[in-house]
Amino acid sequence: MAKEIRFNAFVVNRPVHQSPGLWRHPRDRSTSYQDLGYWVELARTLERGRFDTVFLADGIGVNDVYGGGIEAALRHGSQVPTNDPILLIPAMAHATRDLGFAVTGNLSFEQPYLFARRLSTLDQLTRGRLAWNIVTGKSAAGAKGLGRGIVAHDRRYDIADEFMEVVYKLWEGSWEDDAVLWDREAGIFADPAKVHRVRHDGEHYRLDAIHLTEPSPQRTPLLFQAGGSQRGRQFAARHAEGIFLAAPSKTVAGAVVRDVRRRAAENGRDPAELLFFPLVTVITGETEREAKAKLADYQSYISHEGALVLFSGWTGIDLAGRDPDEILRFENRDNGVVSTIEAFTTADPDRSWTLREIALHAGIGGQGPVIVGSPTQVADELQSWVEEVGADGFNLAYAVAPDSYVDFVDLVVPELQRRGACKRDYAPGTLREKLYGPGRARLSAPHPAAAFRHLPAEDAA
Amino acid sequence: MAKEIRFNAFVVNRPVHQSPGLWRHPRDRSTSYQDLGYWVELARTLERGRFDTVFLADGIGVNDVYGGGIEAALRHGSQVPTNDPILLIPAMAHATRDLGFAVTGNLSFEQPYLFARRLSTLDQLTRGRLAWNIVTGKSAAGAKGLGRGIVAHDRRYDIADEFMEVVYKLWEGSWEDDAVLWDREAGIFADPAKVHRVRHDGEHYRLDAIHLTEPSPQRTPLLFQAGGSQRGRQFAARHAEGIFLAAPSKTVAGAVVRDVRRRAAENGRDPAELLFFPLVTVITGETEREAKAKLADYQSYISHEGALVLFSGWTGIDLAGRDPDEILRFENRDNGVVSTIEAFTTADPDRSWTLREIALHAGIGGQGPVIVGSPTQVADELQSWVEEVGADGFNLAYAVAPDSYVDFVDLVVPELQRRGACKRDYAPGTLREKLYGPGRARLSAPHPAAAFRHLPAEDAA
Repeated sequence: MAKEIRFNAFVVNRPVHQSPGLWRHPRDRSTSYQDLGYWVELARTLERGRFDTVFLADGIGVNDVYGGGIEAALRHGSQVPTNDPILLIPAMAHATRDLGFAVTGNLSFEQPYLFARRLSTLDQLTRGRLAWNIVTGKSAAGAKGLGRGIVAHDRRYDIADEFMEVVYKLWEGSWEDDAVLWDREAGIFADPAKVHRVRHDGEHYRLDAIHLTEPSPQRTPLLFQAGGSQRGRQFAARHAEGIFLAAPSKTVAGAVVRDVRRRAAENGRDPAELLFFPLVTVITGETEREAKAKLADYQSYISHEGALVLFSGWTGIDLAGRDPDEILRFENRDNGVVSTIEAFTTADPDRSWTLREIALHAGIGGQGPVIVGSPTQVADELQSWVEEVGADGFNLAYAVAPDSYVDFVDLVVPELQRRGACKRDYAPGTLREKLYGPGRARLSAPHPAAAFRHLPAEDAA
Repeated sequence: MAKEIRFNAFVVNRPVHQSPGLWRHPRDRSTSYQDLGYWVELARTLERGRFDTVFLADGIGVNDVYGGGIEAALRHGSQVPTNDPILLIPAMAHATRDLGFAVTGNLSFEQPYLFARRLSTLDQLTRGRLAWNIVTGKSAAGAKGLGRGIVAHDRRYDIADEFMEVVYKLWEGSWEDDAVLWDREAGIFADPAKVHRVRHDGEHYRLDAIHLTEPSPQRTPLLFQAGGSQRGRQFAARHAEGIFLAAPSKTVAGAVVRDVRRRAAENGRDPAELLFFPLVTVITGETEREAKAKLADYQSYISHEGALVLFSGWTGIDLAGRDPDEILRFENRDNGVVSTIEAFTTADPDRSWTLREIALHAGIGGQGPVIVGSPTQVADELQSWVEEVGADGFNLAYAVAPDSYVDFVDLVVPELQRRGACKRDYAPGTLREKLYGPGRARLSAPHPAAAFRHLPAEDAA
């Protein structure tokens, strides 16, 4: 029996994501990102293909490494503009029944009291189909938008741990399960003795209030995380249920998966319950030849400078003003981060790259692999990733939107379904139940959120 | 030719708004507030009735004056829970074409950089149908949720003026109209020379970033405001295009309208362009008798304690633990605020009220009048408000949702249309164009936002 493979569509509320320049492709509709109809149609396609979630990335601040400014990013629309992702979800949720929604939220930039309310509202409106992709905000440009400097990396995670404690208290501890009565006869909405004031007086956050919303189906939304650093992995091992992973090869990805699962076990969690979703981009057609022709066609639309803007942002190396034929050699810097440079050294350790070649490589698929082939070939490769890496599914990026998803749904999903590696129908219930089974709508021990389920009785409202 | 009357549906993302206890009415569906389908259906009803906007109130923090705590509020669901209003809009927007959406946003609790992005995103997704109801947050309970004390009233408005300056810079000044090119041939998304960095170093806010979104149809959303105080009126006269007004009588409302229009003229603005929307609740039926029977039926569902919770919150007078037959007399405290107490003294200056009577009066319609009658009677009364007060429309609250709106749309709107006092079709264009006419998609001088249209050239990105 083949292992089930899960899919998230890795998208973002902006016209350029992981394929700079491809907005110029005649079939691309990325520039329709301001049109709710575009998103609703995409959601329906994904639900037809039994995707688990739409995974909405975000980026606060503009990439300013290349040329030391944002001119080139603007010229090519390289990950700018970036609109608020959360506002796409209600329209997509209303048009679907089972598709989940993972929204990126940068806790460094949010107030826990209002952020918790926003996510509870959305978990209610989606009937428990919400996930939160927790990021802590590495963008100095974004921090400047909020009038402050960037906080040192490890300290960001300390703040993040406290933020999580506050939102867990609000989501899990403020309202008991049987607090809300809606008793028409007695005229009672809620039993005040079962609603608890969250009193938090920490280093970074203070709060003295009840959660403003009654419990949502999942209480805490399903938790995604993507940190690759040592401290990020520690955070993931403690909090994350789903882990998004941008790794250039099975070897690199597998090492991260094993390491985070080991850390989760040290925290008393079942390592198998951490679900890993490597980033991949799939380009497919009826035949291998058709798929390869599609790749060549797509590559002809890559904006080379737009791609170097992304590459410079990922690596911190300013490649502006250099000869496209200049040859670069990359050293694999072992800083614990799955870096873009690894993507180049891992792919072929002995190879040197021209800037032109770098742009071509970085121009489709971001920091993950690009799988090109017939449905059978793609299914083989995805299954080998799952087997060798220990992955549970994929965050599927696109080259051309929505065609990359339509192709995948029409060609690869049926092949995987034939192999028993892709569900034919959704499981019932909330997103967490769809992933973990009946009775699992909410987090339970030893996940740390469960510890905040019962606030002290003297904190009754 | 009758003056056109405009209507906003005054609702909130919670089960109890201005009619505590009426969630128990057999026809009430307020408790469906977690269901997107409920909101989508409401939006369609309102668009059928040619409403201008859904006006989404908000309340951050729970009313804690009555009994010095939130027990009674929780017991009756008196304006708690309160979910995030903004997330209702995308689903309603996708299901409608012309209906506008006014969302309440408390600038005391927001970061201008991210808040501006959120509203620009929504103005794009709604194709320019967004309004922002600016509030500055008077709730001490809400402030405690954000781990801080309440800021003194007038100082809140000083902070608000600076917040407005920052968001105007982002919305109006960061991207020139012709910055975005989407030039497929040249492969150019935007001209960097026409995108400007907002550098703001003020007393309360600091920012050094471009706006993250390209210009939305209206740039600055239509601006609503509701402050009744002297400083609040000064703020409205400077910034607001629409003004929401909760006044107990035409006399009180008319005085406010004249005062704010006078102040607007002093700011060089055309006083007629400030549009005033008093709060009213309409209960109607085919006949006066039917309407009165409906009122009596509705009143039988009022939660008396739930209503006193609201009344205590509005007035700051704790009425807990008092005899329902106790007689109160109100003094009209001339503090410049249109207060609930005025609602009682104005209605009948010589009358004394028992707590029971107060609850009945406060239990439907909030701090505005309740108009009960046949469609003809209601239309007469609405027209007399418009004429005597100088109002431009109404924020229409409900007693029972959505029946109050369905009744209004089916019975009163046709009567007003017959009189030429209600449009039969929407005007084309953005919300601002629907209100002010062609060519008015964006704010223009002398509105202060227009002054930020052109940031200095040296701030080019």
